[in-house]
Amino acid sequence: VPGALVRRFIEAIEHKNLSGALELLSPDCEYDNVPMGSVQGPDAVAATLAPFLAGFDTVEWVVHHQVESGDVHDGVVMNERLDRFGRDDQWLELPVAGLFVVRGGRITLWRDYFDRDMLLRQMAAMG
Amino acid sequence: VPGALVRRFIEAIEHKNLSGALELLSPDCEYDNVPMGSVQGPDAVAATLAPFLAGFDTVEWVVHHQVESGDVHDGVVMNERLDRFGRDDQWLELPVAGLFVVRGGRITLWRDYFDRDMLLRQMAAMG
Repeated sequence: VPGALVRRFIEAIEHKNLSGALELLSPDCEYDNVPMGSVQGPDAVAATLAPFLAGFDTVEWVVHHQVESGDVHDGVVMNERLDRFGRDDQWLELPVAGLFVVRGGRITLWRDYFDRDMLLRQMAAMG
Repeated sequence: VPGALVRRFIEAIEHKNLSGALELLSPDCEYDNVPMGSVQGPDAVAATLAPFLAGFDTVEWVVHHQVESGDVHDGVVMNERLDRFGRDDQWLELPVAGLFVVRGGRITLWRDYFDRDMLLRQMAAMG
């Protein structure tokens, strides 16, 4: 089921196992942070995520709800998450709703909806 | 299925049929616009939506994806939408990801994820 693929992807990110996460993306994968812009391809996803994840000791993406349709060959997954990033007893916490389109056993579209200011204000506060 | 209930709800809003939409909400329904705050109960939902909808001639909520689990007694629906509000050939367009929790045949939680600035900038531009 496509939801299990998304769970594996999130677990890899929580373990800061970026190469493990990238293996689950299609070569033409689009990663779209709706209020901030999108990039295409696993290398561009890595270039976006790596410096951000490197700034934190602990990464927890708490999935409150996840629903799906189809299968890993042609499926859609959406989840509601609280993405938490910890460093030195400080936490950046971002409420996110994510869309994942799955084709041929890989994630081909990953689109996260969130409020840009909620992210930027917390990043500024953590320095 | 709970997705059909959410589709009816969205159709009522597109027709600016607020009373028809409110009938599909539970008495303790929470309506949470994540970056702007939440209200509780159909009356508060009406007080939030009515003045906003009144400002536009045309309301179209284009659902790009919708996925669900469970049934109308205990279900979860998420959708990816472009909420469009038109007046005098101008359109306010807001990308939204919505979560709907359904209990006992009614929507008991409606939570929309979007970027607050994307909404406020367009509202200011339309005057």
